[in-house]
Amino acid sequence: MDIDHVAIVVRDIEATLRLYTETLGFKEAYREVVADQGVEAVGLEAGGSFVELLRPLDEGSPIARFRGDAATKLHHTAYRVDDIEAALAELKAKGVRLIDEHARKGAHGNLIAFLHPKATDGVLIELCQPTR
Amino acid sequence: MDIDHVAIVVRDIEATLRLYTETLGFKEAYREVVADQGVEAVGLEAGGSFVELLRPLDEGSPIARFRGDAATKLHHTAYRVDDIEAALAELKAKGVRLIDEHARKGAHGNLIAFLHPKATDGVLIELCQPTR
Repeated sequence: MDIDHVAIVVRDIEATLRLYTETLGFKEAYREVVADQGVEAVGLEAGGSFVELLRPLDEGSPIARFRGDAATKLHHTAYRVDDIEAALAELKAKGVRLIDEHARKGAHGNLIAFLHPKATDGVLIELCQPTR
Repeated sequence: MDIDHVAIVVRDIEATLRLYTETLGFKEAYREVVADQGVEAVGLEAGGSFVELLRPLDEGSPIARFRGDAATKLHHTAYRVDDIEAALAELKAKGVRLIDEHARKGAHGNLIAFLHPKATDGVLIELCQPTR
């Protein structure tokens, strides 16, 4: 499974975006509000993968609490699969606890689903199937 | 800059390795002790990138304290550059604070250097130049 993106939850998306583009040299690839997940997402090109900055739309949300007082914090890694429903069915058959038993729409035209962090030793893992 | 690896600091490397290989389907690509960084590193293939599990050799070390009571925790993202000394010089000229002003040997035949997290809004960033 290739890395689709590494997601970083941020406080001040414009400041962090300047850091990643002007200072580090990344290029913005996509930017959109993902209402379903309560975030604004900005994707930065990193070869065939992306660094995805996530700004919580609601500072009282779980993702904002996860970030806490930090300016930014690594949030999850997303791995690309060809058939997300088949991958979820296979994991479920293995007894892996899932947050999303079926795929939903994520940023950048991806179908996405999260595994439950209790099933992944605590690190949040997303599966995603690009439809772009 | 392509993602070379996403690093996860772990407590029980055999248990987490079973999760990533047997349950999630990743393949082990490299495994070595990096004495300089005080870790055992296991790299898992993820397309052209890797997921790197890091086991602190000393449970009193800063990387073990970063993980704390968690079983695993996302630790840093490493980006691949062609010429790490040139990249470090360019960042230094931009006023970016560095942990390593010059490259040192990392896992998997990489020359590596860390940027200071105070210069990157708190998320640890590694640059690496493969020599493999």
